[in-house]
Amino acid sequence: MSLKVLKSRAIRLKTVPKGVPQVQDFEFFDENVEEKGLKENELLVELQQVSVDPYIRGRLPQYHNKVLESLGIAKVLASKDAKFKENDIITGTFPWRTYSIVNGAVANAQTKDLITKHKNEFPLAYWLGILGMTGMTAYYGLLDVGKCQENEKVFVSGAAGAVGIVVGQLAKKIKKCYVVGSAGGDAKCKYLKEDLAFDNAIDYQKFNNNAKQFQEELKKMFPNGIDVYFDNTGGFVTESVWDLLNKNARVVICGQISIYNNRDNVPKIDDFLFKLIYKHIRVEGFVVSDFKNYPEFYGNMIQWIQKGSLSSKETILNGFGKIPQGFIDLFSGVNTGKMVIDCTKKEKEEESKNDA
Amino acid sequence: MSLKVLKSRAIRLKTVPKGVPQVQDFEFFDENVEEKGLKENELLVELQQVSVDPYIRGRLPQYHNKVLESLGIAKVLASKDAKFKENDIITGTFPWRTYSIVNGAVANAQTKDLITKHKNEFPLAYWLGILGMTGMTAYYGLLDVGKCQENEKVFVSGAAGAVGIVVGQLAKKIKKCYVVGSAGGDAKCKYLKEDLAFDNAIDYQKFNNNAKQFQEELKKMFPNGIDVYFDNTGGFVTESVWDLLNKNARVVICGQISIYNNRDNVPKIDDFLFKLIYKHIRVEGFVVSDFKNYPEFYGNMIQWIQKGSLSSKETILNGFGKIPQGFIDLFSGVNTGKMVIDCTKKEKEEESKNDA
Repeated sequence: MSLKVLKSRAIRLKTVPKGVPQVQDFEFFDENVEEKGLKENELLVELQQVSVDPYIRGRLPQYHNKVLESLGIAKVLASKDAKFKENDIITGTFPWRTYSIVNGAVANAQTKDLITKHKNEFPLAYWLGILGMTGMTAYYGLLDVGKCQENEKVFVSGAAGAVGIVVGQLAKKIKKCYVVGSAGGDAKCKYLKEDLAFDNAIDYQKFNNNAKQFQEELKKMFPNGIDVYFDNTGGFVTESVWDLLNKNARVVICGQISIYNNRDNVPKIDDFLFKLIYKHIRVEGFVVSDFKNYPEFYGNMIQWIQKGSLSSKETILNGFGKIPQGFIDLFSGVNTGKMVIDCTKKEKEEESKNDA
Repeated sequence: MSLKVLKSRAIRLKTVPKGVPQVQDFEFFDENVEEKGLKENELLVELQQVSVDPYIRGRLPQYHNKVLESLGIAKVLASKDAKFKENDIITGTFPWRTYSIVNGAVANAQTKDLITKHKNEFPLAYWLGILGMTGMTAYYGLLDVGKCQENEKVFVSGAAGAVGIVVGQLAKKIKKCYVVGSAGGDAKCKYLKEDLAFDNAIDYQKFNNNAKQFQEELKKMFPNGIDVYFDNTGGFVTESVWDLLNKNARVVICGQISIYNNRDNVPKIDDFLFKLIYKHIRVEGFVVSDFKNYPEFYGNMIQWIQKGSLSSKETILNGFGKIPQGFIDLFSGVNTGKMVIDCTKKEKEEESKNDA
């Protein structure tokens, strides 16, 4: 590839938000990316798809006046890293720039071959969702941290989110568990029950933060208690669960999205530690990077998707310019499944909800 | 043994206390125990020593107007259970009666032979403390639940209590850990450091429930953070610990004595579940009955005591009449080590603190 200058759009954080982020907190600007500047181990990449995830909220302060970054999929335009070559489609952590020069170390060499191998079978967005970070989070969280066993009774909060849909399906389809999920709104609850075969779903928005009423409803759905609680949200939903946990229950703390913009939503659980004693309850937090057994994850998950045991769902917004909006929408629960921004499309193109 | 009537003293709960139990809540009365009434599998026993423990506080409501019971040591006067014979010294759950007829199932056949074998070596109270329920609680809690590894940094609350002294010694002497304990008053802290070789001790009474100040002091003692927190107390001590926990820390919830009489002392930890995520912290409650590997426990503990690696301590009150007071004293921390009432002694006899 010959020397050239690429015009790139980029997004930096102008204001560190106090509560819910607003589009005005993000600023678009133009840059020139000079391909001649490629040093040893560097790649010139064109952004294809961007994953926005709730954990980014906590990291915003470190991006003040800097270009943001997140997981995504990029196309290699030029490479000085022996592991990657022109036209490779790669996953990794990329800046929110249409074109970037990055160190090859930010990209995942393992998924590159998997993406190529399954390119006619799996939409690209799968590698950000069910076969990406959120799928891994669900897999390790439910199986390794939660030690979910066959036929257990499982409750998932944030069940229609990117992690939740995989947790629920793994529990239901692979572990044959009784599975109930909480989600916001009728449409999501219907999706969980009808499309993903959850045994039941509960619309948390109907309860106006009333933990006691939510608990009464949940109790009807779990007459024999809860063995595994997979928590993506925290808040009053988590408050409600504590007294329904069974002997030897496991509480998997994956996310607490309800507090990321508002610390007032921290669960207020009476005697929350005392209640762990007589039931021998384990509460454990984790992040996906604590786990490394990738061959097992890809081997199992690809096979289960191929067999039809697991299905994927993404909410895809079109156009690089939609990245901030997509991120903000996570906190009002606009997405069902994985929220992805497709930068290869124009913003005006019709947006699709990609169901598998 | 011929038919006879034994005059027995007994203690029932007259009033279910609201806060800290008072001696007036307990009532002494006389009963006749008729030995001829012994049925199949029953034993006539004479109470020797009584173990009083904080967990009894939570069970008081079920003893309203009934004779209380707890772990203890008794002498068999007559037996219709093939596992036990006259003059056996047995451990078990016995009513607070000087003489009782009990089902042999309440007694522990396993310890009977151990008590006989080591009778010239270990004081009887050991079988209620370091070699009894509290020693087992410490052993399984630290090693099985806490998965304490060599050279870790361990903090124990309630460190001068029956469980705490064993937890600290196991961590220090067996696992070569850096160990700090909290306890009430200078004398207990001095005991932990000088007699039990704790690396440091902190007097929680000096902090007047101020979690922030306690945390500052604790931080100086743990410049490299805490790997295992063994919690016997809850309250502001537990509040203080949360932010000092290391990556992969384990919080073992064994007791929450600070709330047993006053629910206002429940720890108020900001974002307490969120904080588990990025450090992959595990919080787990347990009771000793969750574990059953007794041969391992007795084998290891007896050997470690014989080698001098572990020492015991009991606070022994003399006389059956002291049982209620001994129990009440647990909540003001009168005891160092295991609180035991020796019913074979008269109340007027000089009381001893039995150091090994």
